[in-house]
Amino acid sequence: MAQRASQPRQRLSSSQVSMDKLVSLCKRRGLVFPSSEIYGGLGSTWDYGPLGVELKKNIKDAWWRSLVQSRDDVVGIDAAILMHPQVWVASGHAEGFSDPMVECKECNRRWRVDEVIIHNMVSDSKCPECSAVDSFTEPRQFNLMFKTFVGPVEEGAAQVWLRPETAQGIFVNFSNVLNTTRKKLPFGVAQIGKAFRNEITPGNFIFRSREFEQMEMEFFVKPGTDDEWFRYWVEERYHWYKGLGIREENLRLRPHGDDELAHYARGCYDVEYLFPIGWSELEGIANRGNFDLSQHASYSGKDMSYFDEETSQRYTPYVIEPSAGVDRSALAFLVDAYDEESDPSPTSGQGKEEVRVVLRFHHDIAPVKVAVLPLSRKEPLADRARDIYAELRKHWVVQYDEAQSIGRRYRRQDEVGTPLCVTVDFDSLDDSAVT
Amino acid sequence: MAQRASQPRQRLSSSQVSMDKLVSLCKRRGLVFPSSEIYGGLGSTWDYGPLGVELKKNIKDAWWRSLVQSRDDVVGIDAAILMHPQVWVASGHAEGFSDPMVECKECNRRWRVDEVIIHNMVSDSKCPECSAVDSFTEPRQFNLMFKTFVGPVEEGAAQVWLRPETAQGIFVNFSNVLNTTRKKLPFGVAQIGKAFRNEITPGNFIFRSREFEQMEMEFFVKPGTDDEWFRYWVEERYHWYKGLGIREENLRLRPHGDDELAHYARGCYDVEYLFPIGWSELEGIANRGNFDLSQHASYSGKDMSYFDEETSQRYTPYVIEPSAGVDRSALAFLVDAYDEESDPSPTSGQGKEEVRVVLRFHHDIAPVKVAVLPLSRKEPLADRARDIYAELRKHWVVQYDEAQSIGRRYRRQDEVGTPLCVTVDFDSLDDSAVT
Repeated sequence: MAQRASQPRQRLSSSQVSMDKLVSLCKRRGLVFPSSEIYGGLGSTWDYGPLGVELKKNIKDAWWRSLVQSRDDVVGIDAAILMHPQVWVASGHAEGFSDPMVECKECNRRWRVDEVIIHNMVSDSKCPECSAVDSFTEPRQFNLMFKTFVGPVEEGAAQVWLRPETAQGIFVNFSNVLNTTRKKLPFGVAQIGKAFRNEITPGNFIFRSREFEQMEMEFFVKPGTDDEWFRYWVEERYHWYKGLGIREENLRLRPHGDDELAHYARGCYDVEYLFPIGWSELEGIANRGNFDLSQHASYSGKDMSYFDEETSQRYTPYVIEPSAGVDRSALAFLVDAYDEESDPSPTSGQGKEEVRVVLRFHHDIAPVKVAVLPLSRKEPLADRARDIYAELRKHWVVQYDEAQSIGRRYRRQDEVGTPLCVTVDFDSLDDSAVT
Repeated sequence: MAQRASQPRQRLSSSQVSMDKLVSLCKRRGLVFPSSEIYGGLGSTWDYGPLGVELKKNIKDAWWRSLVQSRDDVVGIDAAILMHPQVWVASGHAEGFSDPMVECKECNRRWRVDEVIIHNMVSDSKCPECSAVDSFTEPRQFNLMFKTFVGPVEEGAAQVWLRPETAQGIFVNFSNVLNTTRKKLPFGVAQIGKAFRNEITPGNFIFRSREFEQMEMEFFVKPGTDDEWFRYWVEERYHWYKGLGIREENLRLRPHGDDELAHYARGCYDVEYLFPIGWSELEGIANRGNFDLSQHASYSGKDMSYFDEETSQRYTPYVIEPSAGVDRSALAFLVDAYDEESDPSPTSGQGKEEVRVVLRFHHDIAPVKVAVLPLSRKEPLADRARDIYAELRKHWVVQYDEAQSIGRRYRRQDEVGTPLCVTVDFDSLDDSAVT
């Protein structure tokens, strides 16, 4: 890429990135749009635009390549979003996947109990909306699963839930996968797909939305080897982000305290990223013991055990679960790539500077891999450039841009993190070389 | 692949394929499992197993490559499943997307009116369940959209629908895409994603399920050029299936009659495939005029028009929509690939024959591209084979199989349509050649 006169400066740290600027860049360049925007939007749901869909695809493909394709001990599946309701009874989600809420008897606004506590800081119970004191109802449980109805008419129909996680689609298929692949322990089953949680307080752009996409893997192991595999996957997943260009200083591993652990979990680490909102969970890696398979065995009456030919023992495998969010990863890759540079302004003359955005994506993550930029729109230059464009497009996502000055076109590509620009100039016609 | 002694015979025609045998093969080899099977399943929902997820991924990737990546006039998006409810009022789905149903007053079973008519053939109105005569209620409309509730508590929450098609996610983003990509007409916007229809009579394996995946593209054109582009896309989409190996005799184009056309549609063709259940729709290509953009402009109050710089005119583009189903395509590729061969039985001695299944997939569609089969499990042969396996896996989905006889292993690969088997024998160690 051509050298431009720019001030040598430190990269913007991820905590300095303005979420507002990022949201605005995402909308302006077709990365992420507010969903149903022409109707005023639907709270905290988002649509990925022409570049966003490629970004998300690259993240999912990189995950699939790393966890499924390049390994001989992991296979994939793709289970339905609508599952039998008994799945969520067995998993504990029907009963326990809920937040306690209170309602203000004065203004009828409903609040999560911890929101009220945080708002008041002390024990006097005041409504954050109308300031009424001691007006709250007793807390009631609010289940975070979306419900819907399958079958001809609502009254007679079966109530089902939209899955709040993809993991259970893997557990209920444990025997199916075991029987059809003839895998031996240890082995994993991976899945990418949508999940839905009726979050009371979604927000922070695509960090927490009610509809989101997960990349989860259940790695089944022999009990006793679980600690070792747990450590292995914590390391592995941490390095996956690093390998795709996330800066080390913005990543950390945080073990869960005993008070955070689910009762059945034998250990959990979060991979945290330094978002503009502070250190927050990017991925959780949990040692779930044999909780899930045992629960499904008990509720379905089906055998979920594994016969170990080496030891001639039958047991229920333990499972290590790395669980990542596609949207949250997309946000981390965007924040981490985001940088600002000062340039002499091309419009306002010497001396003045213009701050411009550069996304420094890893090659595998960048939505556009190559931009083809002819120095002129005239033939035969444009013709040659279009041939190059057509050839490259067979292999990668490529953009062709002939509008405005070459400087502006470079900036447009920098702004979306295109790693490579091919400039076709008049010399190219003679020597077939490009810049 | 090694030659085997097999009877020369004609390929099984697609209408002769037994759906039961196909369903059983899909379950046995990890292509498609009944969803939530350990709990008795959830009517007509399906999970894709380790090979099924690769098959589906190949179909989606081929579509994306053909419609988005390799073209300069189409971009992609990925909109949310949960949309603002007004979207479905504007599109007509809230009002019109319904089937008339009746209920038997005796047994309370509900029926789609056309089911009752077909069952009775004549005008006497008898319940197909309890045989009661003239016991039906007046027909009432049953909307095919799944509804759910967003927000803290059901009573106060917004009712939304799960999208019954991906297309509307494209229309509501028309201006966003136009502004961010600076595309000129004609151009298309493509999307792959889940959609949900509360079908009263789903069935025929993955042909019609309540949760399904669509591949839709809206190609926006200048009014007056729509007929030409309509013909172009009908041809293009027909040839896409052919190019991926679907046999010509199993494909046909059928224009919709006037009675089938939506009131706003200016034309519609179905690409039909000869499924075991007969000729049925694989994909619809419709000329939808400017119905959708006009409706959204009118309901949202937002401008959805296009300014044509060449003619200095402002108008609402017409749209050509090729709409395909991923699951239905997967079924067509499976049926079309399905063949049976007679082999001398390896277990029951001379003279007897055994019918075995061969899936003849196109290379791009095959879930496994290469199988590596060492002639012996002993070193150094197995070692060399595993090196080859590790090398190939970087580029493709590859299987390694060393269990049982080489003949059985070939058959296992034939049964899932693996186009290439690499056999590593003792000569390979000397000359580095494989079969």
